[in-house]
Amino acid sequence: MDERRDREAYERTHEPARVTALTDGVFAIILTLLVLEIHVPELPSEKGLRQALEEIRPSFVAFAISFIVVAISWIGHRELFAHVRRTDRPLVWLNLLYMFPLCLLPFGASLIARFDTATVALQLYGFMLLAIALTRVWMFWYGTGHPHLLYDSIEQRARVLGVVFVAAPAAVYLVAILIADSSPAISLWIYALVPVVYLIGAFLGRRSLPPGWSGSEA
Amino acid sequence: MDERRDREAYERTHEPARVTALTDGVFAIILTLLVLEIHVPELPSEKGLRQALEEIRPSFVAFAISFIVVAISWIGHRELFAHVRRTDRPLVWLNLLYMFPLCLLPFGASLIARFDTATVALQLYGFMLLAIALTRVWMFWYGTGHPHLLYDSIEQRARVLGVVFVAAPAAVYLVAILIADSSPAISLWIYALVPVVYLIGAFLGRRSLPPGWSGSEA
Amino acid sequence: MDERRDREAYERTHEPARVTALTDGVFAIILTLLVLEIHVPELPSEKGLRQALEEIRPSFVAFAISFIVVAISWIGHRELFAHVRRTDRPLVWLNLLYMFPLCLLPFGASLIARFDTATVALQLYGFMLLAIALTRVWMFWYGTGHPHLLYDSIEQRARVLGVVFVAAPAAVYLVAILIADSSPAISLWIYALVPVVYLIGAFLGRRSLPPGWSGSEA
Amino acid sequence: MDERRDREAYERTHEPARVTALTDGVFAIILTLLVLEIHVPELPSEKGLRQALEEIRPSFVAFAISFIVVAISWIGHRELFAHVRRTDRPLVWLNLLYMFPLCLLPFGASLIARFDTATVALQLYGFMLLAIALTRVWMFWYGTGHPHLLYDSIEQRARVLGVVFVAAPAAVYLVAILIADSSPAISLWIYALVPVVYLIGAFLGRRSLPPGWSGSEA
Repeated sequence: MDERRDREAYERTHEPARVTALTDGVFAIILTLLVLEIHVPELPSEKGLRQALEEIRPSFVAFAISFIVVAISWIGHRELFAHVRRTDRPLVWLNLLYMFPLCLLPFGASLIARFDTATVALQLYGFMLLAIALTRVWMFWYGTGHPHLLYDSIEQRARVLGVVFVAAPAAVYLVAILIADSSPAISLWIYALVPVVYLIGAFLGRRSLPPGWSGSEA
Repeated sequence: MDERRDREAYERTHEPARVTALTDGVFAIILTLLVLEIHVPELPSEKGLRQALEEIRPSFVAFAISFIVVAISWIGHRELFAHVRRTDRPLVWLNLLYMFPLCLLPFGASLIARFDTATVALQLYGFMLLAIALTRVWMFWYGTGHPHLLYDSIEQRARVLGVVFVAAPAAVYLVAILIADSSPAISLWIYALVPVVYLIGAFLGRRSLPPGWSGSEA
Repeated sequence: MDERRDREAYERTHEPARVTALTDGVFAIILTLLVLEIHVPELPSEKGLRQALEEIRPSFVAFAISFIVVAISWIGHRELFAHVRRTDRPLVWLNLLYMFPLCLLPFGASLIARFDTATVALQLYGFMLLAIALTRVWMFWYGTGHPHLLYDSIEQRARVLGVVFVAAPAAVYLVAILIADSSPAISLWIYALVPVVYLIGAFLGRRSLPPGWSGSEA
Repeated sequence: MDERRDREAYERTHEPARVTALTDGVFAIILTLLVLEIHVPELPSEKGLRQALEEIRPSFVAFAISFIVVAISWIGHRELFAHVRRTDRPLVWLNLLYMFPLCLLPFGASLIARFDTATVALQLYGFMLLAIALTRVWMFWYGTGHPHLLYDSIEQRARVLGVVFVAAPAAVYLVAILIADSSPAISLWIYALVPVVYLIGAFLGRRSLPPGWSGSEA
């Protein structure tokens, strides 16, 4: 077997296409499975819209929080893999490891949907968010640290910034876990607000136009 | 890093492929999850086909209405993204925002499957249809208004027409929500008929042959 | 807008990629949702493997029959779309129409899993199989009859053969529906055997090697 | 029809893209459906984290074991299909046959989640793992034995090694099935440890750098 063939076989076996296909599938299913936790309320005829909404509120909050967490995770994955030209075995496994806590999230959402003031439910949900953040950081650090897996090598500064960007909310989640016993309500508020703050932060200071765009190309 | 690399990195990070992959996954799952709301009826031996069909009728109607709504939404998404060459952060988030009420639809379908004459169920289902229409208009308006995201810039007239095409059924849904209290039956009929009318409208006046097609190419 | 742009826009808006992506997603989900109908049996300690298997037998039979039906449907879809170069509006809608009874199949499987000798359950399941066959024939006939949608135009003889190949099992399903009242057991056997016979038939007389293959290319 | 067209039609109808798309979809759904078996525990206020964790432990173990089994199966599929240039009918059907026991796995996981010491549950789960291994070997052996389906023909030695790599855990699963009656606890430990050992084995002795990589290309 000559070297060209060897090289082509290497590229084929390290192609990221199926890794992103599987991952997009997993994300799509998690996003949609979350709704299964919202159960149809009892609707006696005398009940009004307000009461019905009140009844599904905890489920809906759990759905909304988890939806945003999954959405942010997917966007982070897409941004990382936009730089990934090849996947080796460790990266593929780190990607699967990342999906492990993500796949648990619908269970976590149903936990806090049913027990939105229970310390244990809030702690377990927090551990899932923490695990998602830590496996994401691990995959990010590995992927960006191996130039042969990337289109362009990534500067150390950008790598550290990327880790901080994920580790910061993780640290706040840790606080939420620790105070879940004494102040469950605050803990839930933290889970609800962190993704929103994160979202706002992600929008600031992003340029959108392509380099050298003059507007006459369209 | 030279300008070519900068440009290539820009294109890679703004590629719409994974956005459509995630979206197609979400649509595929919603289409198939809807059936989970049709529960196996009790079938004592003396029951005939007619009675069994009668029992699953509300579930089936909810399934069919929601299936068509999701199908129309997917077709609209495909038509928009056929013009999208690049996705920036706001467009990706508007796309995720669009999926939020869509992911709630199986819950809405199970609501009207179980309470097909309850005002509250009909109102909640209507709010979901309204939210789907509004987020779709928002995404459409943003996407078509930024030429650097498109293959070809889109005329203002076509943009306004596109909005009207989605806003018209949304206005009818609003009526259905408002009359759900006094006339729940009419409200359900509106939810059932709007997609059908929409479907018929979408078929009229569409040319199918490619430009310059002579029939000798096949 | 010049003609080249017009042509490119036409090709982009008629690209079949997203149609097959959605369809593959729907098929994948149906295949996997079917298992949700197999419920965990009660397992008191004195029960042996034989008894447990006996208990899940009807569910398993319904799973297996439906799995093969979905698999055959997917293979047929893949074979049709291997010839499809462009999709127009009617073809996209016929494809969605085809997915309608397919999405109902997990419900049908749970019906015959629970009531494998009930006439009504067998009739409803039969109607679903019939609807899958008829919508498939419709889509096939439309797609193969419009040369501008295809890579190569398809001979009339091949089109008729394709229809017969799907209509033949459909005719047998119709018989199974008609006799479901008098002989439910035979009806179930028909549902179970038709896909198997079909499978065997599909394997006969297929050449596998590429045209002009000499074996030295590998 | 000239030979070039004949050849192109052959390539289109034997393209593996949709086979991997369906398969990735199925794998993604199985990975995420597994979590549905973890049910929300009862959480009276006096219960602590430890007790709650104790209650969901069997479900979580079943989830984790099955997640790793599915992940390994997907990686094996990706590695095989990295060499597959064309798919013929038998390979497509072997691929569907491979998905049959895989789709049953969520049911198997819920069996051992609920009855983690019951012989029957452990036996059924073992049969599923065995069926996954055997269908995988069959597909691997067929695919690698037909050079016209591959990019490069694969040496007999590599084929035998590939079979051994899958057959070895299968043999251990057979032992676990046989001892499930006398020592259910050991049987469960075998199911839990085999994937982990397999995982470690898969990491050893793999080169990651592309052929001729000098590090200056990034």
